[in-house]
Amino acid sequence: MPQNANKKTTITDIARHLQIHPSTVSRALNPNQSHRITPALVRKVSRLAKELGYQPNTIASALKKGKSDFIGIIIPDLQNPVFPSIIRGAQDFLENTGITALIASADNNKNYERKAIEQMRSRLVDGLIIGTARRQDPIVEECLNSQIPLVLINRITENLEVNAVLNDDHLGIRDALDHLIHLGHKNIVHIAGPQDTSTGHDRYLAFLNSLNSFNIEAPNKLIAFAEKFTADEGYRTLTQIIHSGAPFTAVVAANDELALGCLDALTNAGLTCPDDISVIGYNDMIMLDRISPPLTTVQIQHYEIGEIAAKTLTEAISNRSIPTKKIILHPKLIIRGSTKRLF
Amino acid sequence: MPQNANKKTTITDIARHLQIHPSTVSRALNPNQSHRITPALVRKVSRLAKELGYQPNTIASALKKGKSDFIGIIIPDLQNPVFPSIIRGAQDFLENTGITALIASADNNKNYERKAIEQMRSRLVDGLIIGTARRQDPIVEECLNSQIPLVLINRITENLEVNAVLNDDHLGIRDALDHLIHLGHKNIVHIAGPQDTSTGHDRYLAFLNSLNSFNIEAPNKLIAFAEKFTADEGYRTLTQIIHSGAPFTAVVAANDELALGCLDALTNAGLTCPDDISVIGYNDMIMLDRISPPLTTVQIQHYEIGEIAAKTLTEAISNRSIPTKKIILHPKLIIRGSTKRLF
Repeated sequence: MPQNANKKTTITDIARHLQIHPSTVSRALNPNQSHRITPALVRKVSRLAKELGYQPNTIASALKKGKSDFIGIIIPDLQNPVFPSIIRGAQDFLENTGITALIASADNNKNYERKAIEQMRSRLVDGLIIGTARRQDPIVEECLNSQIPLVLINRITENLEVNAVLNDDHLGIRDALDHLIHLGHKNIVHIAGPQDTSTGHDRYLAFLNSLNSFNIEAPNKLIAFAEKFTADEGYRTLTQIIHSGAPFTAVVAANDELALGCLDALTNAGLTCPDDISVIGYNDMIMLDRISPPLTTVQIQHYEIGEIAAKTLTEAISNRSIPTKKIILHPKLIIRGSTKRLF
Repeated sequence: MPQNANKKTTITDIARHLQIHPSTVSRALNPNQSHRITPALVRKVSRLAKELGYQPNTIASALKKGKSDFIGIIIPDLQNPVFPSIIRGAQDFLENTGITALIASADNNKNYERKAIEQMRSRLVDGLIIGTARRQDPIVEECLNSQIPLVLINRITENLEVNAVLNDDHLGIRDALDHLIHLGHKNIVHIAGPQDTSTGHDRYLAFLNSLNSFNIEAPNKLIAFAEKFTADEGYRTLTQIIHSGAPFTAVVAANDELALGCLDALTNAGLTCPDDISVIGYNDMIMLDRISPPLTTVQIQHYEIGEIAAKTLTEAISNRSIPTKKIILHPKLIIRGSTKRLF
């Protein structure tokens, strides 16, 4: 395929070759207008534009003005149903700004995450919303150092001055424990999330502190650490505790997917939720009100997280001198059928 | 902010300004290597690079070679949980190819979809996987005319020669009806999807044809057309049929979200699934095995759709002369608790 990248091809060059008017070439190459031209001609123009190495104006102009009207949203795992509503909140906010969001799902893979962010940066992304941060995270640091506008959501990286929209995890876990203790539970398991994430770590610390403030001891044998926020890990860790023989009557899981795995582990061990064991999740992802039993959980403000993150990011993009800020949203305990009074 | 886009700034220019070695500038500007430099220096280099309008090499080289190693995936609605597994299949296939997928969720909004595709095209996307196609769809036509490699998933646009990975919707609906008829049902409602999508239209035609082949009449009053594939629309349309007083004992919904809305409509009308009314969905999205009652549904091969679409697209990108193909995957009826023998 002949290419000619050194000499910059213009619309006029293409028009001259095909002996048509430059405005026809322009229309043919503009996805917004090409429907006004016959498909055959659009194909002819496109083919020649490609052969001559023509660069669409949109790129050229984005390169020139240094602003591309696109932002990136990086999430840890699209299969965790908590993220779609966050993204919806962000997109709804962006709707009238002319800014488009492109999304990358890191699939819990730091290499893929790095590549996706590089792709976005090399395509002149205006800013990033990052939901994949670890407590120590070179990728977040690099983005910060390169001065790309940034908002972290849900999870924070420690010791960095960075915009973030977070949940008050201490409040959420305290309310969950308060609920269980008022129902008479004392031997409460915590299925903690990965400790290299702020959510996993803070919810674990909140569990210890809250139990302490209720004058209840938190024995090590009732705490297990999941390696990922997945149902499989919830199943694995709670099964270990069941096999250890340590007595318990309730479980606080660090997120809903871990809690779903806990429900499976209970069923598999011949135990019933909530008659034998109460279970509480965290996030309030979709469908939890429909499952059996409906899951009691700590509801975070998904939609608002996305909305506020998009607002914070667009502000940071249009004014680079705004100081960074952390916005902490209050979660709310949603009591459903998976928790029950202990007799 | 001073910019100088006409004279192309090089790494050497930046190095000269700061009196440091060009390789240090290069490292500072490379997200893969910037962690080797002190954050203060990385910031200094980045700030100057920005001021001088420096363009990272990644863009320049993508522009030159006309290949960007990124593909776009356009889905209708991220909140429909059928898409995350499709995307997972695509990303797993891409993992070792060096190609990154960026995702756009159109939120069922054709304007937003068009903007997202424009953004991707103006950023030199190598190819697109499109899950938003309508039966008549100018956006798909424009992409085809501009010769960007393309694979449609789930839904097809009529009368176009385009790669597509689809489900055998006729087989799926026939199996669903076969199951209900063997359970003794005859008065079967169809909640049809939007008729401007091939999935909505084909499943509706399949419903009529299959009933016909079983020698059962499909009265108009037992068919309703949803405007979107959402639970709200499932609720609205089945509620209308219930209020019409037309007798029925089973429902085949054109997708799972419609079916969930049908369950709500039944509950609201004081009817029980499956004791009074059997319900079947389509897709087998996550969590259906956990809800009450667990939903009988037609399972499509989500993961395989994504995997095959990514494979087909990368082939089309690397060899533009490969003829287009349609790949039709076979769905499978998953029988759970929402369907029951009629006595």
